Formats: sequence, C-alpha cells, structure tokens
Amino acid sequence: MSALRKLDALDDIIHQKVRLGVMSSLMASGEADFNFLKQALSVSDGNLSTHLTVLEEHGYVSVRKEFVGKKPRTTYSPTPLGRKAFEQYIEALEELVQASRRG
Amino acid sequence: MSALRKLDALDDIIHQKVRLGVMSSLMASGEADFNFLKQALSVSDGNLSTHLTVLEEHGYVSVRKEFVGKKPRTTYSPTPLGRKAFEQYIEALEELVQASRRG
Repeated sequence: MSALRKLDALDDIIHQKVRLGVMSSLMASGEADFNFLKQALSVSDGNLSTHLTVLEEHGYVSVRKEFVGKKPRTTYSPTPLGRKAFEQYIEALEELVQASRRG
Repeated sequence: MSALRKLDALDDIIHQKVRLGVMSSLMASGEADFNFLKQALSVSDGNLSTHLTVLEEHGYVSVRKEFVGKKPRTTYSPTPLGRKAFEQYIEALEELVQASRRG
C-alpha cells in the first residue's frame, strides 16, 4: 500500500505531459529555444507558453532572451531546483513501476 | 527530437495520477476492491468512482460485484487490454527518461 503513496511524490508541475516533455528535453540538451521545443513537442505557441510560464514561475526553468541578428530568441534551461525536481519525479515513478511489477 | 514524440505514446487514460495509481495497484495485486483503492490512494469516493468509470469505459478494467455476507463488494481487475496499455505506457515513459539522461 505504501507504494501507492508514491503518487503524492509525483510532482504535479512535472507530471503534465507538455511540461514533462519540456523538462525531459531540457535535461537532455541542457537548454533549448522556444521554436525547438514547439516543433519537438508538436504544440501550439499558446500551449507551450502557458506551460513554460508555469515551469518558470515554480523556478524549474530559467529564461534567456537575446537577439540573433535581428531575430529575438528565447532560450530555456533547467535550474538546479528543476533538475532536482525532475530527478525526484523519475525516482517516484520508478518506485511506482517497480511496485506494479511485484504482482 | 524523436524521443519527445514519445509524449504522444503516453496514454492519456493512464497518465492521470489517480488512474495511474489504480492501474499500478491492479497490476501489482491482480485485483483490488473499491475500499482498498480508496484508502491506498487517499481519494474521495466520487473522485475514485469517476476515474474507475473512465478506466472501465475504455476497457482497461473489469468490475465484479458480489455480496460478502450482507455487504456489497466491488472488485476491479485489469483486462488484457488494460495490462497491455499499462506496459506500453511504462515503455514510453522509460524511453522518455532514457532520452533525458543522454544529455
């Protein structure tokens, strides 16, 4: 029964699918810009913006804005807090999965 | 980039936290009754009922109703379809996690 309590350990900020995709991508690459994430995740500008804002407001990603020539570019990176939250999420998930396999 | 497309493979029916808890529990134990799931997942009757109905309507769990003495008992089991969907969900998740660690 205790394994099921791991559900509480599944961080709701990360569990949402678009945000899970963003965090996985940023963990893999170290950083990624808005357009890369948009294409990779096949989501709309508005949807991606909404979820990036949630991650930023919770301190899980940091944002860098710059110009490449005359084009603005916005780049996202996981913060140390975001990295830790992601690792804890994965650990909780793995415990849940292992529990499901003990049957 | 292909790893992020694994997001699509994350079955929305299973990804929701209460349903993920239900499916993990049923995979672990083979079957469980309503009261066990309610306590294990710390959710209300209404919340649990809603999510069990979704799982049932998608053919992921089957339901058995019986009387134990004079008390009704409702027991849930994963169907073969539900087991397969859960395994595929876990596989997609593992690929996503592995992709995040290649960074």
